[in-house]
Amino acid sequence: MSHPPYTKRLHRLQHLLQDSSLDAVVLNASPTLTYLTGLAVHLSERPVIGIFPASGKPALVLPELEAGKLATLPTVCEAFPYREHPDTWPRAVAQALRCCGLTQAQVGIEPQWFRVLELQLLETAAPELRVASAETLVMRLRSQKDDAEIAATRNALEVAWQALEATLPAIRPGVTEREIASELTLQLLRAGSDPDLPFAPIVAFGPESANPHAIPGNRPLTPPALILIDWGARVEGYCADLTRMFAYGTLDDELLRIVQLVLEANEAARARVGPGVPAGEVDQAARQVIEQAGYGAYFIHRTGHGLGLEIHEPPYIRNDNREPLAPGMLFTIEPGIYLPGRGGARIEDNVLVTPTGAETLSNYPRTLRQLG
Amino acid sequence: MSHPPYTKRLHRLQHLLQDSSLDAVVLNASPTLTYLTGLAVHLSERPVIGIFPASGKPALVLPELEAGKLATLPTVCEAFPYREHPDTWPRAVAQALRCCGLTQAQVGIEPQWFRVLELQLLETAAPELRVASAETLVMRLRSQKDDAEIAATRNALEVAWQALEATLPAIRPGVTEREIASELTLQLLRAGSDPDLPFAPIVAFGPESANPHAIPGNRPLTPPALILIDWGARVEGYCADLTRMFAYGTLDDELLRIVQLVLEANEAARARVGPGVPAGEVDQAARQVIEQAGYGAYFIHRTGHGLGLEIHEPPYIRNDNREPLAPGMLFTIEPGIYLPGRGGARIEDNVLVTPTGAETLSNYPRTLRQLG
Repeated sequence: MSHPPYTKRLHRLQHLLQDSSLDAVVLNASPTLTYLTGLAVHLSERPVIGIFPASGKPALVLPELEAGKLATLPTVCEAFPYREHPDTWPRAVAQALRCCGLTQAQVGIEPQWFRVLELQLLETAAPELRVASAETLVMRLRSQKDDAEIAATRNALEVAWQALEATLPAIRPGVTEREIASELTLQLLRAGSDPDLPFAPIVAFGPESANPHAIPGNRPLTPPALILIDWGARVEGYCADLTRMFAYGTLDDELLRIVQLVLEANEAARARVGPGVPAGEVDQAARQVIEQAGYGAYFIHRTGHGLGLEIHEPPYIRNDNREPLAPGMLFTIEPGIYLPGRGGARIEDNVLVTPTGAETLSNYPRTLRQLG
Repeated sequence: MSHPPYTKRLHRLQHLLQDSSLDAVVLNASPTLTYLTGLAVHLSERPVIGIFPASGKPALVLPELEAGKLATLPTVCEAFPYREHPDTWPRAVAQALRCCGLTQAQVGIEPQWFRVLELQLLETAAPELRVASAETLVMRLRSQKDDAEIAATRNALEVAWQALEATLPAIRPGVTEREIASELTLQLLRAGSDPDLPFAPIVAFGPESANPHAIPGNRPLTPPALILIDWGARVEGYCADLTRMFAYGTLDDELLRIVQLVLEANEAARARVGPGVPAGEVDQAARQVIEQAGYGAYFIHRTGHGLGLEIHEPPYIRNDNREPLAPGMLFTIEPGIYLPGRGGARIEDNVLVTPTGAETLSNYPRTLRQLG
């Protein structure tokens, strides 16, 4: 991406700040920091703090050994590098806050990213600073994706699908979940995913598929078996997230029935998406299909989550979420039914809200696929 | 690993708590939680909170959809699953704290892992709870590795080295840093690394090697070039972390000189390691070699960091660290010299403190290796 999106993002943040009770947003090494500056850093024992005031240049407090990355940064920031001794860090933070005119201000942080480490640093550097949540503001800033972000997501979906197709021939009796998960990981990288996958693929055989966040183990494939694969790819930082169902051998009727039901729930939810629709109604559309069939108690999670630079981000497609959907919002639709000890099913797509309705970005086959 | 190490770890934690001012340790989805329970979870928007009182059974607050993982957990915990609506989460936390008899207690958290999200949840659930840092206690708990942990690290090092050897033939003029980093990632997985690598490999060509945390880019290899590769593997959760230097073509004398100096600094530091030696003295041993040669200003980071379930953890091999080393401590030795715009050198090993001295677990060739 070139510089213009970053300039635009920074301006949008400043507008949002001017309309809020916050004087600045203070970020640690979070995806929002990357979104605003292009800086790629990870959470570590050496904190990175980005300070974004309602007007003027942002400030970055960071370890001296990361300072080399600033030269090519698309967003110009005032830099406050610190050295290895933690006792010297509060001084760098205090200088950065002063430079932004923020010693007695009210600043917003991201509760889901900001750690006690950074909170203590802020408190030591500027005891009079008031700290509030910037969660809603950040959601407004990031939840409507621009064309470049949507294009990256489409590419990530293509990479994910190509990797799946390259992996399926390896599924045969005796192979383990872990072996298939490793093969899928290899194929994701070969197909062009960024090396930091959004999550380690879930490959669950038979009864293990009833565990929504199953960790691939050394279970061998023993037909007949239901197989759940939930996997993702990342391109230019943007995530794709898919789940598809497979069968090896002849499944019993109830397993076939839950796969069919989650497919219908997936379709009902996708059909409900559009601008102005409260997120909760999309969840309800999926849930209704499953409840009417008598499996409501086995659909134990929300219908979906936003995705972008993070694999889980707002909007959350949760029953109680009254937030209206808006064009550019991008999220998963992934209803599931989990029968403990027997097996589970989930079918997951990535859907974009458009000015007039919705577009499913992941129009790949979604019916139960017979292997072997 | 079988159950006994978990029982032993829990007992050691309880002993440490009984000797401290803390009534319990409260963890989020951190490596310490995995260390104590065997539970594999990641930080996400759905918090996981583990409560470990000084005596009695631990309690786990976690999303209902993760609860299936508890059945096979080696540490028996009282479970407090919650559903999707965040308003219901504080109740689950309050119940768990009550179950552990901790409503008015002083609890310790990990500042580097605990987020404002979890802190707010604790404050809402139990306003009278006092929160302090458990950093020192956790360091004491985890920093002396047992035999199984050391064996896993040895395996991770073997995987890392095997993957490097399989990758080197791909280095030729015109190939990009990113291509080599991808190939190395593939080879790490093929060689048997856990899929969640400790970090994305650093592959830096020419002047880019002067950036200690360089991100592999689309720079093609243009000989003559100094090449820095910093990579790691993970086996059974445990990290290996290596850096080696390569040359393609004939390098100028100063680059050869800095590679030779970091090798000497690496050897001097490793020779200084032993039980009872303050960590800072190991840093000083490396730093002295580099300072005496006139390059002190270009060695801009500490000499090393502990490693285990985390790629960076205590003990930190930092000039000002007076903490004495103890048998079972495991850390990197990785002095570096970085000449901006020209090139940098770092040679990194993994060293174990033994009852009588030290053992370098990574005794692979460490001199500059000529490629092509």
